[in-house]
Amino acid sequence: MPDHRRVITGFSNPTVKALRALREKKHRKAAGKFLAEGLRLLTDARECGHVPETLVLASARDPHPLLAELEAAVEAAGGEVIETSPDILSKITGKDNPQAVAGVFAEFDTSLASLDRGGADIWLVAQALRDPGNLGTMLRTGDAIGAGGLILIDDCADPFSVEAVRASMGAVFTQKIARAEWPGFEAWLRTGPGQLVAASLRDAQPYRGAPYAAPCFVMVGNESRGLPEEYEMACDLRVTMPMKGRADSLNAAVAAAVLGYEVLAALDTASA
Amino acid sequence: MPDHRRVITGFSNPTVKALRALREKKHRKAAGKFLAEGLRLLTDARECGHVPETLVLASARDPHPLLAELEAAVEAAGGEVIETSPDILSKITGKDNPQAVAGVFAEFDTSLASLDRGGADIWLVAQALRDPGNLGTMLRTGDAIGAGGLILIDDCADPFSVEAVRASMGAVFTQKIARAEWPGFEAWLRTGPGQLVAASLRDAQPYRGAPYAAPCFVMVGNESRGLPEEYEMACDLRVTMPMKGRADSLNAAVAAAVLGYEVLAALDTASA
Repeated sequence: MPDHRRVITGFSNPTVKALRALREKKHRKAAGKFLAEGLRLLTDARECGHVPETLVLASARDPHPLLAELEAAVEAAGGEVIETSPDILSKITGKDNPQAVAGVFAEFDTSLASLDRGGADIWLVAQALRDPGNLGTMLRTGDAIGAGGLILIDDCADPFSVEAVRASMGAVFTQKIARAEWPGFEAWLRTGPGQLVAASLRDAQPYRGAPYAAPCFVMVGNESRGLPEEYEMACDLRVTMPMKGRADSLNAAVAAAVLGYEVLAALDTASA
Repeated sequence: MPDHRRVITGFSNPTVKALRALREKKHRKAAGKFLAEGLRLLTDARECGHVPETLVLASARDPHPLLAELEAAVEAAGGEVIETSPDILSKITGKDNPQAVAGVFAEFDTSLASLDRGGADIWLVAQALRDPGNLGTMLRTGDAIGAGGLILIDDCADPFSVEAVRASMGAVFTQKIARAEWPGFEAWLRTGPGQLVAASLRDAQPYRGAPYAAPCFVMVGNESRGLPEEYEMACDLRVTMPMKGRADSLNAAVAAAVLGYEVLAALDTASA
């Protein structure tokens, strides 16, 4: 262990408290930082150019070449590597069996202006989604379908929460994330090419065979209320998935995925 | 209020303790009962022929015709209706803002023998899924695609947990549920018609255009480890979804949905 490395052994240490506080949204917002955990996820982050400002390691851990690379990257970037006990790491991440490493990252620019809409054929859009797990799952699906990123409209859960980051399986580092209110999003969307598509029951056509066009913005609404009618009516295309049973809707992240894969297949066929 | 109705005001009441215990798997198993909450969900259950043995109402509630029907159905079936405070209801369901009604149901027969495989073209199969939310979401998706039910292989989370029931949005009452170990499932499957399909990376063909056939059993594996190779190799068909990004897998419930909708479309086209 390099002798300049900080070792923390006390639960009441101010750094532990500050790290633990990042599990709460108000503290993340105040600090402009968020937590991610696990060697695989942090390695994904590093390979995408995101090196944590602070790396926290369990003092009892197996050596691993990827962990050594991660430590070297953090130190090369001027960040800090801290060693602590598994119990304290568990307190920081809020998990009973924490992974042996966690990192603190600066939050990214989440303005619409930071998006390059021509950089991808598909973008996912979530309106007022309240479940961080659903946001994380949408990020993961976005990565899989080659989406450019996830745009959060109105009052969504925090994509930088521990739950969302965990559910994203690293896609929080590969997908762009933007946040906006509806009027700002609609105005931005109409400044350039872009087809806004919603899963909807209003005046909708079957989702298979619908005329999708890139860049295609696939929007799903709140878990309980769905999309406001005004938003659906502002879409270029409303599509509906078969609902053969009693339910009239799908889980939001599932709807985004079924529709997202359909758009991917349609655009691939069109360009083939 | 009928004067025979029981009113519970104490947190330490034995009935409250027994109901609250149903949030834990071992107590559900011992009692052979589970909890579901919310007027809409309980109404779905009633309309599918599932009337709770015990109905628990918040004493302060708005009158609702569906609630009156539910109360009548429980009493007609010889069940008990209990009134209690919102605080106690919250303690029972473990939710800060509980819905105004919860019900206790007898667990269903979950043997493979209880399934009528010819009764549906699609069945979902989950192997060692650990997240009750994923199981609930699969049930919800199964309802939407007209699946017959969900078969749980090996050590899965409990589909009758409060989280799974909640995520199923009522589909726990419309979908059949069966539990089995792999050898028992494989033996049962091969006693009749049935195509076993897995989302896989091993020796797989593209999921679009694959030769799906009814009754089609769509299987997904554990959230971390995926399916054991032996199980994949026992499948009649292995298919793969495009993975355009860094990740090599989808969320399990998402994979089941994308594949399930593809199978539905393929079988609909074949029968058209």
